[in-house]
Amino acid sequence: MGTGYLDQLKQEAFEVNLEIVRERLVVLTWGNASSFDRAHGIFAIKPSGVSYSLLKWQDMVLVDLDGKVIESKLKPSSDTFTHLEIYKGFNSVGGIVHTHSPWATIWAQACKSIPVIGTTHSDHFKGDVPCLPYLNKDKVESAYEKETGLQIVEFFKKEQIVPNHMPGCLLSGHASFTWGETSQKAFENAVALEACAHMAYHSFKLSHDINFPIYILSKHFTRKHGENAYYGQK
Amino acid sequence: MGTGYLDQLKQEAFEVNLEIVRERLVVLTWGNASSFDRAHGIFAIKPSGVSYSLLKWQDMVLVDLDGKVIESKLKPSSDTFTHLEIYKGFNSVGGIVHTHSPWATIWAQACKSIPVIGTTHSDHFKGDVPCLPYLNKDKVESAYEKETGLQIVEFFKKEQIVPNHMPGCLLSGHASFTWGETSQKAFENAVALEACAHMAYHSFKLSHDINFPIYILSKHFTRKHGENAYYGQK
Amino acid sequence: MGTGYLDQLKQEAFEVNLEIVRERLVVLTWGNASSFDRAHGIFAIKPSGVSYSLLKWQDMVLVDLDGKVIESKLKPSSDTFTHLEIYKGFNSVGGIVHTHSPWATIWAQACKSIPVIGTTHSDHFKGDVPCLPYLNKDKVESAYEKETGLQIVEFFKKEQIVPNHMPGCLLSGHASFTWGETSQKAFENAVALEACAHMAYHSFKLSHDINFPIYILSKHFTRKHGENAYYGQK
Amino acid sequence: MGTGYLDQLKQEAFEVNLEIVRERLVVLTWGNASSFDRAHGIFAIKPSGVSYSLLKWQDMVLVDLDGKVIESKLKPSSDTFTHLEIYKGFNSVGGIVHTHSPWATIWAQACKSIPVIGTTHSDHFKGDVPCLPYLNKDKVESAYEKETGLQIVEFFKKEQIVPNHMPGCLLSGHASFTWGETSQKAFENAVALEACAHMAYHSFKLSHDINFPIYILSKHFTRKHGENAYYGQK
Repeated sequence: MGTGYLDQLKQEAFEVNLEIVRERLVVLTWGNASSFDRAHGIFAIKPSGVSYSLLKWQDMVLVDLDGKVIESKLKPSSDTFTHLEIYKGFNSVGGIVHTHSPWATIWAQACKSIPVIGTTHSDHFKGDVPCLPYLNKDKVESAYEKETGLQIVEFFKKEQIVPNHMPGCLLSGHASFTWGETSQKAFENAVALEACAHMAYHSFKLSHDINFPIYILSKHFTRKHGENAYYGQK
Repeated sequence: MGTGYLDQLKQEAFEVNLEIVRERLVVLTWGNASSFDRAHGIFAIKPSGVSYSLLKWQDMVLVDLDGKVIESKLKPSSDTFTHLEIYKGFNSVGGIVHTHSPWATIWAQACKSIPVIGTTHSDHFKGDVPCLPYLNKDKVESAYEKETGLQIVEFFKKEQIVPNHMPGCLLSGHASFTWGETSQKAFENAVALEACAHMAYHSFKLSHDINFPIYILSKHFTRKHGENAYYGQK
Repeated sequence: MGTGYLDQLKQEAFEVNLEIVRERLVVLTWGNASSFDRAHGIFAIKPSGVSYSLLKWQDMVLVDLDGKVIESKLKPSSDTFTHLEIYKGFNSVGGIVHTHSPWATIWAQACKSIPVIGTTHSDHFKGDVPCLPYLNKDKVESAYEKETGLQIVEFFKKEQIVPNHMPGCLLSGHASFTWGETSQKAFENAVALEACAHMAYHSFKLSHDINFPIYILSKHFTRKHGENAYYGQK
Repeated sequence: MGTGYLDQLKQEAFEVNLEIVRERLVVLTWGNASSFDRAHGIFAIKPSGVSYSLLKWQDMVLVDLDGKVIESKLKPSSDTFTHLEIYKGFNSVGGIVHTHSPWATIWAQACKSIPVIGTTHSDHFKGDVPCLPYLNKDKVESAYEKETGLQIVEFFKKEQIVPNHMPGCLLSGHASFTWGETSQKAFENAVALEACAHMAYHSFKLSHDINFPIYILSKHFTRKHGENAYYGQK
């Protein structure tokens, strides 16, 4: 494993950390992204509380799956252990994005899942985006960030949801996490989540009675995902 | 038919594809625009799933009215057959824009037409912008994009709506298509649709009882369209 | 009267026409601003339907109070006669801005005046911003734009509203006009109107029972206007 | 006390005055920020009514705690006495930001406190952000700006709220003030207030029944504040 490879991992994570700001998913320091090298069990993540305007790619912090920081004087994001548990629990995930983007957070604060009612949503999430319940007091006060990651992984296992088909979730009273095969895909899912949260909110204010057909959901998801996908250049 | 002409067609389509992003009608790759050369039966359209930040005008894909791709290694937009059917069905159309712009999509997801209640709307659309019903399962699973185009053309014929007077529509659970004599006009109609969708949504939350007079609708539409138009420089 | 003076008038009007676009009060060509030289009875106004991205200050059209265009090949804004009637009817006005800015238009489409409920509003408008009723059919079909201007002037006279104290109004089903001693002031009032329209809409969704004290309204308006004003550098 | 020090104070205040515009918390001249040097009892504040586009750091006005302007020909912000009373009343405050940012103002105009329902809010404000009642007529007509500052200080004392734990408040019918150990922190709290005001408004439209646990509020506030804080780089 050469340094060159780790630098590339840092650069990849850095780019996505900038993209979530550019796309207005993040203001101040309310968000972080990481890129995972599953082969070596190392991910690069934003340092904690560092202003986006000062951030350099070299500042990204490398962390292994035991939570050990590799050659950095900066502390990693306070949400590092949430990322870590998702990487451990979901085999296909190569990148994670956490933001307090307003519309996803609006649903999370209302403790409500985002119902699928359109093709924009179906292109990215195969069904309602679930909102997980408040963590209990013991978990919040003991190992809050690690418990948040475990909650996500356990919820998906219990509900038998495939993380690839539902690359994100809401956390009650908090905000959202999205993921993907790469951190770039995780970013795109964060953009999609925000747009769908915004649109679903308002569509339901226009009509309480929306019956989006499951066959359109399936059509759109499979148009973009899986072996019969025909969207894009391959 | 010289190459020069086709290059110009590509450049025209390219420009409009950029404009829909600049105007925030499109995020990620959720949209596409095409320009049609009716004399030669060829249109230029965005390649499928290519990031807007990487797009060059040379990447635009030329397609004829049989759906055949002309000298390109890139696949055209997955919505190509919808564009094609609209060009075939509506004689006056020279450009088409498809976006998932948020407010038009909010109405589409609620399966509701956008009522005309103001002059902004009247300047572009001569009446309520119709929302077409969900396509049925057979059509979605057989030739989804082609059926979408056919649905639009057949709806306008059945309802006896002149495509020039109503240069756009919503598709339930999906988003919007707009069109015009040129792709630039189609773009302007997409901007107008989004603004009117946003404003109508909120005006109706202020008052359920809006009776916009038909004579103001007519005045504004004819001020801009038809032989007695006096808006603009000719 | 030298050409130099008229060029300055054009430049002034041009600048404000750009500002309303920069501030997102205008998209496409939905708006226009004019600057008035009362001493010479001439105003400079945007040409009709010209794209803002192509506009040069030299394109501004000079019009006198009979509606006669002075040395220009371009047609003035289709709303020219509305501006003209306001300049004729309101002695203190030196600049006018017309936009379809979304939130002001939302109230106008709902045919509702914007109630004063805060100091932002009070700093600019001494009371509710009135929404005038739909023009009748005869007036719309005969001399629509001139009748619109007359309606505004007559409404203010009938209701004994001082144009300086209420530098703007809404037109049912249409949008807003604002004015001021200069076109720059008219622009600032357009910005204020849009912000207040946005905030009032949402404040009333939070509470139906808002009783903003008249003494705060007076305090804020007189802090900025009239002989006892102490806001600003003099 | 050297001039160098005061220049630095001006530059600091200047930077924050620009930031509130960049972040769209302020349009036109609706806002001001100040930086306080407690050791010398002097603060630097924006001059009254000066356009942000013309503002230079040298224009910042230095004011002492008696309200006396130090070597400046410009008048300080009309809200200077509100800042002054807050600096006098709250020992730990080193910077103040006042804006009419839309969502905070929407709550203020509705005369409602912003309930804490999420972690974004908890990271900055330890509980509901209070909305203070309308000032009475006598206070508005006598020494409005000073009385506004006194109202804030007295409210916090009476309600036994620690200004460090609740670095901001709303004023009924007006807008918001935020503060912090530095003007940069005051700015960050203004950004947070605006985001939380926006999100809380909409979360409550999705659900009237939100029971955000107090232990998550405490966890998030103490993660960032106080001696056990572990967010950020120290």
